[in-house]
Parts: sequence; structure tokens; C-alpha cells
Amino acid sequence: MVTKGNALSIFALGGVNEIGKNMYVLQYEDDIIVIDCGSKFPDESLLGIDLIIPDISYLLENSDKVRAIIVTHGHEDHIGGIPYILKQMNVPIYGTRLTLGLIEIKLKEHGLLRNTELNPIDPELNFTLGSIGLSFFRINHSIPDCVGIVFDTPEGIVVHTGDFKFDLTPVNEQHPDLYRLAEIGHKGVLALLSESTNAERPGFTPSERIVGAHIEDAFTKAKQKIFISTFASNVHRLQQVIEASIKTHRKVALLGRSMVNVVSIAIELGYLHAPEGMIIDVNEVNKYAPHEIVVLCTGSQGEPMAALSRLASSNHRQLEILAGDTVILAATAIPGNERNVSRIVDNLFQLKANVIYGSGSVTGMHVSGHASQEEMKLMLAFMKPKYFIPIHGEFRMLHQHRLLAETMGVDKDNIFIVNNGDVVDIHNQEARQTRKVSNGNTLVDGLGIGDVGTIVLRDRKLLSEDGILIVVITLNKMDGKIISGPDVISRGFVYVRESERLIDEVNAITLKAINQLQENKITQWSIYKQTIKESVGNYLYTNTKRRPIILPIIIEV
Amino acid sequence: MVTKGNALSIFALGGVNEIGKNMYVLQYEDDIIVIDCGSKFPDESLLGIDLIIPDISYLLENSDKVRAIIVTHGHEDHIGGIPYILKQMNVPIYGTRLTLGLIEIKLKEHGLLRNTELNPIDPELNFTLGSIGLSFFRINHSIPDCVGIVFDTPEGIVVHTGDFKFDLTPVNEQHPDLYRLAEIGHKGVLALLSESTNAERPGFTPSERIVGAHIEDAFTKAKQKIFISTFASNVHRLQQVIEASIKTHRKVALLGRSMVNVVSIAIELGYLHAPEGMIIDVNEVNKYAPHEIVVLCTGSQGEPMAALSRLASSNHRQLEILAGDTVILAATAIPGNERNVSRIVDNLFQLKANVIYGSGSVTGMHVSGHASQEEMKLMLAFMKPKYFIPIHGEFRMLHQHRLLAETMGVDKDNIFIVNNGDVVDIHNQEARQTRKVSNGNTLVDGLGIGDVGTIVLRDRKLLSEDGILIVVITLNKMDGKIISGPDVISRGFVYVRESERLIDEVNAITLKAINQLQENKITQWSIYKQTIKESVGNYLYTNTKRRPIILPIIIEV
Repeated sequence: MVTKGNALSIFALGGVNEIGKNMYVLQYEDDIIVIDCGSKFPDESLLGIDLIIPDISYLLENSDKVRAIIVTHGHEDHIGGIPYILKQMNVPIYGTRLTLGLIEIKLKEHGLLRNTELNPIDPELNFTLGSIGLSFFRINHSIPDCVGIVFDTPEGIVVHTGDFKFDLTPVNEQHPDLYRLAEIGHKGVLALLSESTNAERPGFTPSERIVGAHIEDAFTKAKQKIFISTFASNVHRLQQVIEASIKTHRKVALLGRSMVNVVSIAIELGYLHAPEGMIIDVNEVNKYAPHEIVVLCTGSQGEPMAALSRLASSNHRQLEILAGDTVILAATAIPGNERNVSRIVDNLFQLKANVIYGSGSVTGMHVSGHASQEEMKLMLAFMKPKYFIPIHGEFRMLHQHRLLAETMGVDKDNIFIVNNGDVVDIHNQEARQTRKVSNGNTLVDGLGIGDVGTIVLRDRKLLSEDGILIVVITLNKMDGKIISGPDVISRGFVYVRESERLIDEVNAITLKAINQLQENKITQWSIYKQTIKESVGNYLYTNTKRRPIILPIIIEV
Repeated sequence: MVTKGNALSIFALGGVNEIGKNMYVLQYEDDIIVIDCGSKFPDESLLGIDLIIPDISYLLENSDKVRAIIVTHGHEDHIGGIPYILKQMNVPIYGTRLTLGLIEIKLKEHGLLRNTELNPIDPELNFTLGSIGLSFFRINHSIPDCVGIVFDTPEGIVVHTGDFKFDLTPVNEQHPDLYRLAEIGHKGVLALLSESTNAERPGFTPSERIVGAHIEDAFTKAKQKIFISTFASNVHRLQQVIEASIKTHRKVALLGRSMVNVVSIAIELGYLHAPEGMIIDVNEVNKYAPHEIVVLCTGSQGEPMAALSRLASSNHRQLEILAGDTVILAATAIPGNERNVSRIVDNLFQLKANVIYGSGSVTGMHVSGHASQEEMKLMLAFMKPKYFIPIHGEFRMLHQHRLLAETMGVDKDNIFIVNNGDVVDIHNQEARQTRKVSNGNTLVDGLGIGDVGTIVLRDRKLLSEDGILIVVITLNKMDGKIISGPDVISRGFVYVRESERLIDEVNAITLKAINQLQENKITQWSIYKQTIKESVGNYLYTNTKRRPIILPIIIEV
């Protein structure tokens, strides 16, 4: 499908017109490089689905050409699909040390660690994959060790920003390398792929450091135990929690599997620093006075099974929130999670805790990890790309990012707003977008990858709304006489024991339908089933205004 | 249950610790007055449920004492439950003219209009119900004709604010009657029930009039058709749309059933003013030039079936949004609706429309209808109540409202944060809260009111996640031999045609289980069913990590 000849092709298999499941592809002749391999959570219409990953049919068809997956950073929407993709094809993974550390946890869980080639990226060093040279630049985000990627192709330089913000006072001293960015742009950039998450937000995203000041302030005021919840992967914020704990002479206990995982790997790899004895086991909490304790926990998004939710409903095995304790939600609710988070805040107030919550600007307990408009313009000013492809965002974000690029002097005709699968081909410095590769959502449900399709989902939707009503009837093979039934069984429709009259009527309607069909000498079971479905369905809708799935089962003996 | 003697009792049957289904009750001896009768929408856990209304067991048990339902205003969370309650008991309804007009639409739909006594409230007049005197005060909100209620009981004055804000420059010239409020407070208020929706918001909610200025500004700049979407019940905003249309020489077409309903009733009753010929039929739109048209439509919350959603997906029978048209979302997304609204904005940008959207402060196209903290304090300053019961809000809002009341000098011990059903009894000016009346959510599903319970909902939940697998087997009554089956049927679990091996294995497991039970001379079908459920369930979970409902059906012939 990809045109032959010396064309450079760029496309997304996930990440545009959506938030999540990022996967971008760069191909020059027989060399394919994949950037990121994320997952996303299903919305409420995909009932029972655990996870969505990109459809990688194109990569499977061209698996001999796929040189590597380069991972920009360790967030789920960039690494969550890796285990599922590796089950379908083996390909070397490249990432910085922390990113690989987080990927390793996943691979271990899936029993894939042994057979996967993991290559650490040193942002200072270059290397080559086939005909494509790769180098990197450090950039800030809400997780350490993020990189943007510079692809040196025979057609020219292509830059992928990864997720980024410009934090000029970063917590971990990983400063954005402005000189390097300027140098890349100075050499000339053929195409820039830049992330668009906050393209609707004016201004410049505040530094993570302001959160640290607010945390310290809250810790100083707290008289009893402190519970603080944030994204486990936000190692900078964890560092600031530890620093505020040192200053206020408190020990830190960790709660929640991902918090324990990330902290241990971040400390091990040197991205998180805590004095010896600072971090204590949850079981030791009661050995200390309340004012000597900070509990750092997961669940800032209101996840019902996570630590904070259990604590808020006084339902945690080991710890309890008491009146006068301080609870800090150091994260904003991701769209869709607002109600769950609000429920937790309600519960915390009912426990008479001091709750510090609400959007970042009110409490100062959260800043975004993504560039706002002025930073996006700064990136465009450094890169001065000939072609611009906004990525990583829903359409309105890509659209706003395009408007920014236009104000920065990028030629209107050189900006490509693409869908997943749309290929931008660049040949002799000229780009055009005319063709598409296969793409889509692959649904993960339990152990099944891609086996749940529209029919199963449609049935789940119908079942979820009005349940199912099963009519079983046994007929004599010889004369068609009813031997047993009709028996009516129902799940999720009505409580059968309280609906005797309705069930009796369903029986009567079924019998009548069968008698009529037999009188008319009809023998095909499919017609029997269809007739029962329709007559029972109509009766139920008229009398209940509900439409359960009607499932007639006819047995011949 | 209610104590005898001269006690005044106040309680909520809906509306506290939740947003929606407002219903408050005031009882003095044998006189019960109900305030509002709202509904709310189910959250995602209540699968298939259409609506939630208050459980009115208490009112049914005391139906001879219920004198009236007094309705403060015409929003769904205050009137939505009326038809369902009237199906259970007949009681006179009192409301202002517009409120009754909106209730009439509902009663017509439910065929209840004839048998219901509807009594108009004139806010200037008093009347008496049993031992309780009633008077009213006008107050501002995002719908016209709102009232607060003053109950003159033998124990003292009780005030219920209704939903309110203080709009000192209201669009409809229905100014809040500050003198009346001051006078009520001056006489002495025993207890105040005040709404808490925006208790988390500092400051003073801006006047509806600022939205009008922004609408006019946007209308002036628009070069083609304008589509503007807002809550149909926000008649003030509709008025401002009409005024901006007059100024910019545009005609207004209405789209969406509730928009047509509300506009017609509001014009008829004199709450909305439009010059003759200003409002045109949708079919006439194409007779005008694009710059002469405003389309006022429903769907600002992203409702998939509403006008705006259809327009945004180019799926409307009569009208089309073209590149360069202006689309204004003059409403903020209610929590839970953000994703649907965003999807519409994405689609509108794809149509190359100019979209004006986003939170109120950014575009100025929305202000809240509820009091912020300073207005809540103003209400408390007017009323100076002895007892304070914050109502209409989730716990954190009630909690913040309590803190405001404390700063306004209400005695800490005189503030009651109640749950639905908690009764505050006031006797000889002393209030205490010790008892509870029955209360809860009554679920409406189709024609059923309250017939869907936890078992049905639990089954819907299970069905929605992993579907159902039915195993049918026919046994000989005499010797227990298998005559037919096992036959496996599934809905919402896997697509059976693509899962032959799995189904074969289910068959084999079922046969093995039956053989074993028969060898052990077990004859109870319940044990057969349980064994099949467990062995098939375990097999499926191990091999798919899914847990469908397993439904064994054993037929004896």
C-alpha cells in the first residue's frame, strides 16, 4: 500500500482525534519506526471492554520492516499497548531509563520480559535505524525522563515533540535544552509533529514548582495525619511531597499498588530522592504520632477500588481517616471522572476531614503537564517547520493548534490535520496527503484482543438496558405437540416472582403463536422463533415500555 | 411515626446529599405541605433506568393530611416527579403561572391534566392551608417566575428560598424584592432552608444581562447563519437572543421539541416578547439570506438525539451547518455531559463553523442561575434565622454553606445538615433531630414505577460487562439420559460462530459434570445447575478472564 520510491511517509495509528492510544509511524522505504504504543480507556458505550489499543494490521503486514518502537515517556497513553502489541509481533523497544523501568513492570505482569529487546536511550547520544538517524532532546512533562525525537531522514529532518511543557524551574533539574532546540530549528526542520492537548488554553502552563510551595504550606498548617493523593507517575510531585515531609518532620507511608511500584523504581533508578528511613511501611503508621505522618496514596481520579476511595468510605484494611486529618487531592479530575471524585470529597467531609480539593487555580495543588498556547508557539518558533502536523488531541485541539501555527507563519497549505490512518507522503520536499492505511480501535476484553465486535457490544447494550427474557419450549419431533413449556426465564428485565401476571401472559401468547403456526402447517423453526419474538416483544413493550432481548429456544425431541 | 403534640417537623424526601429530585416537607400536626417534586437522571450504575423520583411512602401513609404541593419554579429537578407522584396520590398543585404552564405540558403527556387541581400563586397574595399561612417572595434564577416561600406556622416563620440568585439587573425586570426580604427577617425567622448549589464558589454570580451583551457582540460579527443553543427553560436568555436578533435584523427559527414548547408557552403567558413575524418556521429558513437567520435550538448538553447534535453530525432533516456559519453554545456542560459536548464541538469545527464554546468566563455566553457565596451570605443577612438547614446540594456544598452560616453568626448547634428522611422537629422554639421517615430513590423504567430493584439492576450490570451464556439440556424423566443438548447460546459474551472451540469445550464440561452427578446418584436439579454454573464459569474465566452470567436450563421430558 505504501508507495515505493524515495518517499517519506508519516501517519498516526492512534492519538489524533482522540486523547489516548498514541501511536505514530515514520516510514522511509523499507524502514518503519513506530513512536509510542499507548492504550486508552473505553467510554461508556463500550460495555465490558477493559482497554483500547491501536489496530496494528499495517505493522503486522509489514513486520519485516518495523525496526523499533521508540517510546517518548512512561504514561499509559504511550506505553499501555506495548504488552498487547508484543503478543502479536516482536519488535525492539527504545526508551529512557525510567520509561523502560515502567515498561518492564508491564512486561513482567504479562510474562513478556524475557523475550523483549529493551534498549535504553541516552538523550545525549545518536544512533541509526536503517536509513534513519535518531537523536533526542529532553523536554518537561508530568513524568521525568521525557524526550522529543529528531529523525534525520534522507528527505530531511522530522521532529516529534512527545508530550511536553516548558518548565523553566523544573523540580528534577532536567531543564529543557533550549540551545539544542534552537540548533535543530536552525538546521532546518522539514516536518514537526507537536502535541495539542492544551491548545485551547491561553498562556503558559505554570511550573510544577508552584505545587510544591502549596503542598509545603498545607503540610505546615496540618495538625494531624495528612493524606495526599496524586498520579503515581508524577514523580516530581512525589518528590515535592517528600521534601515537604522532611521540612515538617513527617514520615511518608505509601498506599496503592502503582504508588508502591513507581516509587520503588524511581528511587532505584535515581529519579526520586528520599533520606534513609523516610519512607515507612503502612503497618508502621500507628507507631508514630498523627502529626508525624503523611500517607501518599493513589485514587486521585476517584477510582472506586483505589486507596483514597476506600479510605474515604472508611473501608480500608489498615488505615482510617479521622476528624481533623488533612486530605489533599493533588490532581484535577480527568473529564469523565468528576462525579467519582466529588463523591470522595463528600465522604471526606462527612468524616470531618479538612479537605483541600478543587481545580488547580483555586488550591494550587495541581498544574498541567502539557504546553499551553504560548509554549506551543515557542516550540513552533524554535522549529520553524516547513510542514506541521498537530498530533495528540481531539479535533478541536488540533484545530486550535493549527490556528496557532498559522499565526507563527507556517503556510496554511503546509498544515495537515489528519485522521488516524491518513498518510502524509513527502517526496522531494513536497508533501501530500492522499491515501490511508488500515487503522482503528482494537478492543481488549479479559484475555481477548480484538475478539469483541459490534454484535457482542450491541447485545451488551441491549442487555444492560432491559435485560433478557428466554422462552423455552420442547416439541415432539413427530407431531409437533408441546411436550414441555413454555418456560419463561428472565435476567435484568423484571423480577419474575413479582411479575406473575406478565409471565403468564407471555406463556399464553407463545402458546397461541405456536398453535396458529401449526394450524397453518408451518414447520420452519426460524419462523416460529421470529413469531414468538415479535408477539412477545410487542406485548412487553405495550405493557412495560421496555424492550428486553427475547430469546425463544425450541427443542425437538 | 411523626410525634404528636404541637411540633413542627421539617424534612427532605429528596434534594439533600444529591443534585436533583427535590422534595421538602413541612408538617404541623395534621397539615402536611410538600415543597417541589423533582426528578433526577440516573447515573451510569443504574442501567436502563429512565428517571429517579423520591420515594413517597411517608406521604402515601399520611395522604389524608397532605394539603398541597407548592412548586417554587419550573425546572425538572423541581417538577419532573409530579406526573409519577400524581399516579400514586391526588394532591392539589400550587405554582406561579409559568411554572403551572410547564407542569401542564407534563400532565398532558401523561393524561393527568383533567383530574389535577392546579392553583396559580400570585406572589403578592397570602393564603392559608390548614394551620399554616403561606406567602411568597420573588427571587431570581435561570427561569422566570421563581418564588421563595414563607410559612407562617404556630411555632414561627419558616422560609424556603427555592433556587435563587440575586440578579440586580434582571432581564425580565422581575427584581428581587429586597424590602420584602428585609421585612421577613425583621419579623424574625425561626428556620431558613436555603439552596446550596454554588456554595463552593466565592463571590457573586454575574447578572444574566452580561450574557446578552456577549450574544449581541457575537451576532454583530457573524456573517452567515447563526445557530445558538441553550437550555430551553432559560427564558431570559431566549429573550436576549430575540433582542440581539432584532438589532441585527435576523429572524429566529426554533429547533427541538422543548424549545418550541417553552417558547410558545412563555410567549402566550407574556414571559417572552417577540415582535410579530420575528419567529419563523424552520421550513422558511431557506427563504432568507444566511445573514438574516438565527436558529435557536436545544441540545446544549450534547444530548445525542437533540437538534444541535444532529446538526453537528450533518444529520438533520431540515437544516445544515455550512462552513463559515456561527455556532454558539450558550450553556456550560453539566458534570457528566462534558464528553458529549466536546464531541459536538469537534464535529462543528470539522464542518468549518465558527464555534463559540467553553466555560462561561472565557466566552461570556453563560452565567449560573445559582447564588454564589456572597449571595448566600446576603440571604442569611436578610433572614437572620435561628435555625438553618442548608438544602439542595451534595454534602460538600451543604458543608460549605454551613461554614458560611457560621461566619454570619448562626449558632453552630442550630445548623442541621440532614440526610433525606432526617426529621428536624421544632417544639417550643427548640429544634432537635432524632428520627427518620422512610425515603429513597424510586426508579422509573418505562411504565414501571419502583418495580426495578437491586436484583434486576445487578443482573443488568453483569450482563452489560460480559453477557450471558445459556446451556440447554433435555433429560429423560425416566432414566436421566440426555435426549438433546447440551446446546449453548450466548448473547454479549463472545461471537459464538467465531468461538467454536470454546463452545465445544463448554459442551464437554457440561456432559462431564452431568455424567459425574448421575454416577453419584444425585437427582436434585438445583445441584446439577449449580455444578454446571461453577465448572463452566471456572473454565470460561480461566480461558477468557470474563464472567458471563451462566444460565443452565434443564428440561425433563
